[in-house]
Formats: sequence, C-alpha cells, structure tokens
Amino acid sequence: MIPTIRWEDNCIYIIDQRNLPREKECLVCHTLQDVITAIKEMAIRGAPAIGVAAAMGLALGSQSIKTGKYGVFRRRFLEMAQQMKSARPTAANLRWAIERMIKLVERMHNKNVEEIKEAVRNESRIILERDIEINLKIGHNGLELIPDRATILTHCNAGALATCGYGTALGIIRAAYEAGKDIHVIADETRPLLQGMRLTAFELMEENIPVTVIVDSAAGYLIRKKMIDLVIIGADRIASNGDVANKIGSYQLAVIAKENKIPFYVASPLSTFDLDLKKGDLIPIEEREPGEVISFAGHQLGPEGVDAFNPAFDITPSRYISAIITEKGVLQSPYKSSIRNLFGARDDRGKDIRGKGR
Amino acid sequence: MIPTIRWEDNCIYIIDQRNLPREKECLVCHTLQDVITAIKEMAIRGAPAIGVAAAMGLALGSQSIKTGKYGVFRRRFLEMAQQMKSARPTAANLRWAIERMIKLVERMHNKNVEEIKEAVRNESRIILERDIEINLKIGHNGLELIPDRATILTHCNAGALATCGYGTALGIIRAAYEAGKDIHVIADETRPLLQGMRLTAFELMEENIPVTVIVDSAAGYLIRKKMIDLVIIGADRIASNGDVANKIGSYQLAVIAKENKIPFYVASPLSTFDLDLKKGDLIPIEEREPGEVISFAGHQLGPEGVDAFNPAFDITPSRYISAIITEKGVLQSPYKSSIRNLFGARDDRGKDIRGKGR
Repeated sequence: MIPTIRWEDNCIYIIDQRNLPREKECLVCHTLQDVITAIKEMAIRGAPAIGVAAAMGLALGSQSIKTGKYGVFRRRFLEMAQQMKSARPTAANLRWAIERMIKLVERMHNKNVEEIKEAVRNESRIILERDIEINLKIGHNGLELIPDRATILTHCNAGALATCGYGTALGIIRAAYEAGKDIHVIADETRPLLQGMRLTAFELMEENIPVTVIVDSAAGYLIRKKMIDLVIIGADRIASNGDVANKIGSYQLAVIAKENKIPFYVASPLSTFDLDLKKGDLIPIEEREPGEVISFAGHQLGPEGVDAFNPAFDITPSRYISAIITEKGVLQSPYKSSIRNLFGARDDRGKDIRGKGR
Repeated sequence: MIPTIRWEDNCIYIIDQRNLPREKECLVCHTLQDVITAIKEMAIRGAPAIGVAAAMGLALGSQSIKTGKYGVFRRRFLEMAQQMKSARPTAANLRWAIERMIKLVERMHNKNVEEIKEAVRNESRIILERDIEINLKIGHNGLELIPDRATILTHCNAGALATCGYGTALGIIRAAYEAGKDIHVIADETRPLLQGMRLTAFELMEENIPVTVIVDSAAGYLIRKKMIDLVIIGADRIASNGDVANKIGSYQLAVIAKENKIPFYVASPLSTFDLDLKKGDLIPIEEREPGEVISFAGHQLGPEGVDAFNPAFDITPSRYISAIITEKGVLQSPYKSSIRNLFGARDDRGKDIRGKGR
C-alpha cells in the first residue's frame, strides 16, 4: 500500500485519492498552500489523514518563516494555522492537529526559532506515527464486536487512505480478517465521490479481504433481507453527547440498522471528539460544489443548468449508535457520561488528552 | 415533451431513455424482439410504460403471424406473450398488459385472424390512451395531499417518461403545480442509472417546476433537517396487503420518512397491483448486471475486477406507507381491506378491473 502522506526532502508527498484506483499518483506539496489545496480538493481526505496533513502542512509552512524572532515567528505561524483551519469545516482532527501544533509553538516561547522549527517538524512526524498506532489499537478494541462469518457494511472510506495506515472502521475489519475471522465486506459506493467504490473496495482487494460494492440505495434492501450483520463507519467529528458527523448517508444507514435491529458501530480516534460541542447539530456541515453531483469525469449527468445540493456530511444522533470504538476502549450509551469518563480520567492527571496525551 | 412510445407506420417509436437528457433519440422497433430488447435494456422503463410497450410489442408481433387459422395464430401469440413476459420480472404492469391481450385473443376465438390482428392493434392503442387518462386522475386524486409551499422528495422517475405522459408521482406533482401550489421538488439522483437526475429533473425543468438534485445518501439529512415535507414515489408492483416494490432505495426512504414523521406516499394505477400475492416479499426482485454499478459512460469507477451486487428494486412494507393514490381513489391503512374493497367493488359487478374494466 502506498503511504497516504509522507515527508521527504522538505516536501510532502500525498497520494492523490481523487483518481484512485485508476491512477496511482503522488501530489508533491512544496508549500503550506499546496497542502491546503490538497485538503480542500480532497486529494487527501478522511478526518485522521486531514489532521496529519494539517500538522505536516504547518510544519512545512513554518520552515519558510524567515525570522530569528519568536514573536514574528509566532504571529506568522498563527496566520498559517488560521489559513489551514479554513481548509475544511467538519473534520475535528483538522482543528485538533492545528491546536496541538500551536500549543507546541507557545510552549517553546523561550527557545530559538530554529529549535522550534525542528520541534514542529518532529511533532508532525509523531502525529503521523501515533495515528498508525492508534488505528492498530482501535482494530484490536473492535475485534470482539465482529462475529465470525459476519457480513459487514461500511460506508465511505475509513481505511488506510483515510488515516496514515490501517484505518479506523477498516482497521477493525483488517484486525478481524487477520485474526482469521471469515468476513465479507459490503462497501457502499458513496456518492458523489465514490470513496466506497474507489478506495474501500481497492484497499480490501489489495489484501484479499472479500468485498462487494453496492449503490448507496441498496443498503436498506440488504439490511432488511438480513444479508448484513453489522454496520461500521468512521467519524469526522463526535460531539460530547456521542452524536457523530460522518460522510453523507451515514445517518440513514444508522436509522435502517436500528429499524432492523443490527448493530451500528463508529470507529474513531479520540482526536475526532469535540468536547466543546454539546450535540451533533452544532457541528458545521460542509456543503460542497454541486458539480460533484451533476457531472462525472467530464460528463454532465443531468440536464444542462440543473440545480443540485451537496452536503458532504450528516449527523447521526447517538441513540442510533451501538458503540464507539476508540484507541482507549469501547464507548457505549449513555455516551455523555462514558465520553466524559474517558476524557475526564485523563483530566484528573492534569493532562488534556486531546492536546497532548494521545 | 417527446412521447414515451408511439405506433407509426407499423413500427413502434420509443424515446431512448438511456441517453436522456443528453441525447434525444428514438429507437425504431420493427419486431417483437426489438421491443423486448428495448424493455430489457431499459430504453423504455417505468412500470406503466413497460405495460404499454408490452401490449404494443405484442400487437406489432402479432401482425407478422402468417396464418388464417385461429388455432395457429393463438399458439404463436401465446409464444410471443411468453417471450415478452420474460423481459423483466418485477413490474406488474408487464404481466397485466400481456394477460389483457391474451384474454382479448381468446375472447375472439370465433373471429377471423385479420379481425383479431386489428383488435389487438386497437387494444394496445386503448391501453396507451387510458394510461394518460389514469395519470390525470391519479394527479387529481393526489392533489389534496400536497400542501401549498411543500418541498417534495421523489425517487427515480415516476413521470411522463415512466408512463405515456403526465406520470404517477410526478402526475400529482404536476397537478399541484398546475393548481397554483408553490412547490419545490427534490429529486434523488437514483443510482445506478440516475433516472432521478436524468429524467425527473429533466421533465420538471421542461415545465419550470423548481427542482434540486441530491445524491441518494443525502435524503436522510434533508428529511431530518425538516427540509422535506413529504415523499412521493411510484410503484412497480403492489401486493394485496399494500407492500410496494419500487426502485432500489425506496424502502430506506420510507423508513427515514416514518422515523421523522413525514408522509410517505405511493402513486400507482390499479394495473400495478398484484392481488395474487399476499405480501411484498413474494415479489420477484430483478438483479441487474454489476456493470451498471461499477462503470459509467465507459469509465471503470472501481478497481479492476471488483464484485458488485445490483438489485434493481426493493420492498417497502405497507406499514411505512401513508397512502397509495390510484385513479379510483386514495387507499389507506389497513391496506388489505382497503385494497380488497376497491377491487372487490368491481368484482361484484362481475368484472375483473385489472383484466378489462380499466
């Protein structure tokens, strides 16, 4: 598997996910702006991967700040952070990574700028390496939820490509497969950008994990026919009450799963939680270009001039969610207290797990 | 609007819906086999239109039977009917139209073959003309269910193109618009063949009825955000208990509508009812080629060799359906008795409404 993102010779190499699996090409980002554009245009996507890209983008950008003065460096770094924050609005990991980088810079106020630049580069490398470790832990923690001979529905791509390797939802699927469980994955194609068809099916086929693609509309039919044992997805942001923002279509899968009494799981690192938000409906939902819906590969699909509405995410209220699998354990209802307990335990030790301890 | 299907100079002209709205081309069918192929390959689709095409196809085929003997004609006609029946399995109207034509041929056992051929041609013309009348009545009957300023979600195409004009679900939408109601339609794109995006949006734009396209996965988001007031779809077959087979994705819309307490309506002529079936799960569900899912306009969308499952319809149990709007009135729960009453009233007069009275 090609790495989602890597730092080499003062450039960031990003596998361009827009044309996978047809073309396996890397984008070379020389500047902060290159990375922001790659995130905006979804050459790199998936909340954890966006977080890593944001950290690496800031590290790259900070190298070009020409000053020996901390104050100047800090001001310029905060401007860059602000630009990066505006790349995409929904994924919590973007802001999480940026804030972690800012805290590092502020902690080092009495160091010289060259030291800070090096620390910033190191920090982005640590975030990347930890991401893979976290996914392995999520995979391990979720393993017990996957019965042998399970048929598992997943939506969009919460795989190696949405992270720095292994994946969250697909991490659990990988762990189950590696543990010798006989599983079959149903991948929703995930219109408009087809991450399920293009990325999830591709990743699973590379590892010989059995996968079948369906259109998003077919999920209900399969669930009602008892052809699916459980649903598992990733997350772009999770509010403090356990409501989950994820790729558009997740909400309706959760409703259908509940209606048909099969489990609906969310796999996510702690960096995706936004404890500042009381509920999911406060999460900003990105609306993307209508063009993503009405044209494909240069083909106009609908009538000339047709109007389209293209929300990229939706909110699944926590009452539809059977469990949230994190690197620190499996959360269950009531989420408000189970989430508070998980994060609170760390707060007792005087650490903000989202800022440092991860 | 180009007519969906017409008879001219002993040929059947079918507007080829596979390339609409990009190309507005007619298929010319010279033989029964041409019509069967057009139905199989979905150049013409939509249960009522399939019914009309089946009747016209048989009428066309019967003209070529070279015999003066009733017995020979009848045997050959029944063979043709059998071929036609196998074109597509789910739409009730196909079988309805074929059986109606067979009954006509059997009633005329003491007539000469040329007379029968003419009667068969006439019968297919009557079925076509009645189809439009029926849609106008459905539109009229459904009118009261559409509030002023309603935003209406529809799936697939139950419009003029799915019928011989006006449409069933879109017939009601047209009637509401013509009655001066301020409505806005949200059209689900309807993967894999995009009938919502290509056909429904096209039809509505031609008549200046406001329409916005969304991906199928976005329906739940809009419904939960209270951006949709009601859902209305067509039907491919309705069992005697009110369970509805319709385009894949209908079931999940119905579940989400119910979960969010908005009405879910089905618009359908009586010819779509299959009183022989006790419940929806007995309706055969067509599985179409994986290629419809994994490639588009010559582009391979997913990885080379990816597996796909492509059921074309699903079943919505009647408990999710707020009302079924027919040309004879609006049916409501309990459907078993309301359907029996509607058809039974005709049976009392010694007529099978599905075979003759329509």
